[in-house]
Amino acid sequence: MEKVKVRVKGKEYEVEKGTPLGRVFELAGIRDAIGGVLEGELIDLQTPLRRGGEVKPVYRGSREGLEIMRHSLAHIMAQALKELYGPSRVRLGVGPTTEEGFYYDVEVEGKTITEEDLPKIEEKMREIIRRDYPILRRELSREEALELFKRLGERYKLDIIRDIPEGEAISVYEQGDFVDLCRGPHVPSTGKVGSFKLTSVSGAYWRGRSDQPQLTRIYGIAYWSDKELRERLKFYEEVKRRDHRRLGRELEFFTIDDNVGAGLILWLPRGAIYRKVLEDYLREEHLKRGYQLVYTPHVGKSKLWETSGHLECYRENMFPAMKIDDEEYYVKPMNCPFHIAIYKSRVRSYKELPLKLFELGTVYRYELSGVLHGLLRVRGFTQDDAHIICTPEQVDDVIRETLEFALSTLKDFGFDEFKIYLSTRPEYSIGSDEQWERSQNALRKAIEGLGYEYEVDEGGGAFYGPKIDVKIRDALGRMWQLSTIQFDFNLPERFDMTYVGADNKRHRPYMIHRALLGSIERFTGILLEHYAGLLPIWLSPTQVIVIPIADRHHGYAREVLERLRSEGIRAEGDFREERMNAKIRDAELKKIPVILVVGDREMQSGTVSVRSKKEGNLGSMELSRFVEWIKEKIRNKE
Amino acid sequence: MEKVKVRVKGKEYEVEKGTPLGRVFELAGIRDAIGGVLEGELIDLQTPLRRGGEVKPVYRGSREGLEIMRHSLAHIMAQALKELYGPSRVRLGVGPTTEEGFYYDVEVEGKTITEEDLPKIEEKMREIIRRDYPILRRELSREEALELFKRLGERYKLDIIRDIPEGEAISVYEQGDFVDLCRGPHVPSTGKVGSFKLTSVSGAYWRGRSDQPQLTRIYGIAYWSDKELRERLKFYEEVKRRDHRRLGRELEFFTIDDNVGAGLILWLPRGAIYRKVLEDYLREEHLKRGYQLVYTPHVGKSKLWETSGHLECYRENMFPAMKIDDEEYYVKPMNCPFHIAIYKSRVRSYKELPLKLFELGTVYRYELSGVLHGLLRVRGFTQDDAHIICTPEQVDDVIRETLEFALSTLKDFGFDEFKIYLSTRPEYSIGSDEQWERSQNALRKAIEGLGYEYEVDEGGGAFYGPKIDVKIRDALGRMWQLSTIQFDFNLPERFDMTYVGADNKRHRPYMIHRALLGSIERFTGILLEHYAGLLPIWLSPTQVIVIPIADRHHGYAREVLERLRSEGIRAEGDFREERMNAKIRDAELKKIPVILVVGDREMQSGTVSVRSKKEGNLGSMELSRFVEWIKEKIRNKE
Repeated sequence: MEKVKVRVKGKEYEVEKGTPLGRVFELAGIRDAIGGVLEGELIDLQTPLRRGGEVKPVYRGSREGLEIMRHSLAHIMAQALKELYGPSRVRLGVGPTTEEGFYYDVEVEGKTITEEDLPKIEEKMREIIRRDYPILRRELSREEALELFKRLGERYKLDIIRDIPEGEAISVYEQGDFVDLCRGPHVPSTGKVGSFKLTSVSGAYWRGRSDQPQLTRIYGIAYWSDKELRERLKFYEEVKRRDHRRLGRELEFFTIDDNVGAGLILWLPRGAIYRKVLEDYLREEHLKRGYQLVYTPHVGKSKLWETSGHLECYRENMFPAMKIDDEEYYVKPMNCPFHIAIYKSRVRSYKELPLKLFELGTVYRYELSGVLHGLLRVRGFTQDDAHIICTPEQVDDVIRETLEFALSTLKDFGFDEFKIYLSTRPEYSIGSDEQWERSQNALRKAIEGLGYEYEVDEGGGAFYGPKIDVKIRDALGRMWQLSTIQFDFNLPERFDMTYVGADNKRHRPYMIHRALLGSIERFTGILLEHYAGLLPIWLSPTQVIVIPIADRHHGYAREVLERLRSEGIRAEGDFREERMNAKIRDAELKKIPVILVVGDREMQSGTVSVRSKKEGNLGSMELSRFVEWIKEKIRNKE
Repeated sequence: MEKVKVRVKGKEYEVEKGTPLGRVFELAGIRDAIGGVLEGELIDLQTPLRRGGEVKPVYRGSREGLEIMRHSLAHIMAQALKELYGPSRVRLGVGPTTEEGFYYDVEVEGKTITEEDLPKIEEKMREIIRRDYPILRRELSREEALELFKRLGERYKLDIIRDIPEGEAISVYEQGDFVDLCRGPHVPSTGKVGSFKLTSVSGAYWRGRSDQPQLTRIYGIAYWSDKELRERLKFYEEVKRRDHRRLGRELEFFTIDDNVGAGLILWLPRGAIYRKVLEDYLREEHLKRGYQLVYTPHVGKSKLWETSGHLECYRENMFPAMKIDDEEYYVKPMNCPFHIAIYKSRVRSYKELPLKLFELGTVYRYELSGVLHGLLRVRGFTQDDAHIICTPEQVDDVIRETLEFALSTLKDFGFDEFKIYLSTRPEYSIGSDEQWERSQNALRKAIEGLGYEYEVDEGGGAFYGPKIDVKIRDALGRMWQLSTIQFDFNLPERFDMTYVGADNKRHRPYMIHRALLGSIERFTGILLEHYAGLLPIWLSPTQVIVIPIADRHHGYAREVLERLRSEGIRAEGDFREERMNAKIRDAELKKIPVILVVGDREMQSGTVSVRSKKEGNLGSMELSRFVEWIKEKIRNKE
């Protein structure tokens, strides 16, 4: 018999090849492990050892253990479904683990599983857990496996078996009278899992293909302790509560219409006002910093994309060609070639550099419809896009300014926790050593000069230049990548960009792509979730709502409204025939940051009663003091 | 012999059919006519009368006579070319009259005619005029005609002959040894033409088709008197001087790039600043008036254009389809379906109406490349587009407000001479009598209420609703159509738009499309030509340039610059090592409306020396007074 050598906790054991891991642990006196990691591979106690190496035991409560028990929970859920709806009515697809738990794609004949069914399924699962069935692994030949699942009527499992390469082991796991095709690993018995909850149900095509039947995907999350599970559930509730798609609909920010097309955003009036404020802010900040605005078309000839190389490397992300006058035109996926055309519209002198061209440029990219997600993943979006063209000597200053600009912009939106990443020269690259060195140094110096920590992704840069990425942390602790500062040694060559130097000769400039927020759409999605819809006053579509208590206060309320509007404050009045409390509740639902209530007292004293969504009830204020108060908040972007 | 009855000056003459008109005039004692109008048809003295009717003689100096003599000038130019370059080297295409003169498309073997050749051609034409050749008409059979022009090597004339329908007379006109295929009419002899000048040369494909040879089109203008010709030439020089394509390049407003595509505008930084000011102004004015902003995508599914009817009636003006996920998408030629999708994104109540959705929407339309012209005719343009959706009762108020808004906007840009046109129900139309009546009345009342004259184009409306067009007169007296207010009874039906009325039932709203400036691009072209590039201060990319006289004034100049910028004034400084006069000249070439010169005196007294391009030298002013002065001009849109 062939032997394998396994090392556990510093000691080596020689066992027959095929011995289950559990046996080795027994030899090593390890009792409470639920699995192990063999040279990086997660296996369970029943996994036959086919090779030797270092094995680390995996215990309950550990990260690796989580994955094992989540996998077992998927089986337990499948078993529960079979018991609830009858084994022959339930057909199983795949049931993998996720970042937070597990899911199983299933088909239940004559029954549509909805979220209302989940408690019943959970109950049955707990019963199976209490029964503490041993979970047993068995290896089968291909014929045996086909025979077994054919008998069980598991047509999707048969699909999977047919795809398993010849020679690879086919294993099933059994618990009680439930058997599932599975590579494992699993906990030793159904009683060994942690805390779980089934969270949601969605449709999922078998194999992700729309020409295949649609199964029901049932999601669960699972952790070792009840406490952790509760915390994560709270987090998920919060994520759900903040879902920008729900907020976008409720606050009337945007809509997506099937007849218009997936991933194409229609900005509703309230969202459009916010977008206008955002865009005005961006344009002003760019002008202040010496950027020059440009506007470029949304379509352009194929020649542009041939020269840029996009047709060669990026075609599958582009909308298809349109043939016009025997030429092919494309909707633009990027603004670069247009900005370069502007740069090249005349001879440029070193005296004009750095030239910083800025556009709120709307681009269109093809994304699979399955990955589209509200504002976060779309097919049409507007970049806050700039191209900086400069001499080699200007690179340091340009990058410092740009990073400073990026961070101060992110701060203006209330983000102050950043993670900065520097991606450096990869193995295959274009551009000279000097270019790479100068650029990477500039990026490094800029970050260090501003006193930030950063991570280096050695060799992780694009082939055409190094970059900085800035991620922010949102209110839920999630990281989102926003700003990018990317050198490009490629396009200046491809488009033969030059400037005339002090020596009267032509030189090749450096070019930097950069976006601060990335895309207005995606940024807005992040912002809505970060603030749970309650945007800072300066960004709110409606900044103030004036609520008269009774009819006799309408006149004064209108005066207040007029005054606020004349001061440039976006104010509305609520003159409906409703009770004050109902109006206040509505204003809060609409996430209006400041409510002014006016009644007899306010009318007599020329004041307003101020209720800030963020700071609570601020009592009454003279109208002109209130104007100052809110203007300062707007100015300071509080 | 058949007879025809001709009535001249109240008397009837019966002559043989085929008698030339000149013979009838002889009988009537008319000597100095150069042609006549027979029942609306312009003919010459040699034209054989094939039918009877009223004939009015046409004299030198008359409008109808202009057309006859311009036609003869085209022949004289062709004869001149044949004499100059040799008859066998010159092949003639067509030589019609134009609004102001004539042109001839010609091909000269081995020679490219340029504008430098024009004086020589003019001289030869004058010689032919002096020779006063009789111009003789002759009718030929098809065979004779083919034979003649084959012998002359006139291949383009052969094309024309082949296209003349069987049975129609084929005529040629001869003067000296020159003969041309021509239907006439012509003056009796080459000496009977007026004053003329050859103005320009361009390329023109034979029959306007790019698969045919390119001929040279030589343009001339012609009037009866030298005085009128001189005036028109001056006008043309002015038109040329104001050509927005030249100004757009010189002032760096925009560029068009072959690699990007014809008719697609790249807005350069100076043009983009102007466009930003314009767009900010438009958005603010719309918000002030209760419009709601929206932003919509530039592409949308074919479904939209099927429902709207564009695919059926407007397809040839649309960019071709793009296939994505088995659906066809189109780049939008109009914003309407998107605004309607926003309207329909939820149930609408009568309380929300009138709903006025506004977008600076960039649309793309296919135009033949031959008709593209700078900013005036393009393939991509941004409309100041709004859709107003209202109840029947609101129509009057809505239209009055909208017309008022249109005119006040046009006035803000310095246009105050309008022509208003009302187009009413055509023979074929949709919509009820009530709809047409209500809408036409509203349009009429709005114009009359504002005290304007208007012309009615009876039956000239679109089939789906009546409209108002507003034209303005520019500095050269040319009329341009800008604003349109168009009812639409079609789309609300097609898209099944409804609102819930006070009766809690669903009703069909009225919808109005309207644009005030039409397209930002075209409007900018008109504005540049109207102002010959010297835009009003509020629209100028650079409003003020500060020119220090010597190096020692740089510090003070920078102070002035800072102060102006902090006041929101778009100011630049000219700190180059150049003489003051050179700097002033450059600033004038760049059409900067205000120049501030600062030297010793200004530095000591805290003043600036103000030179307004429009008002001349205004002497020195205290800086803060200057700031007030210019801010008032900006506020008042002077």
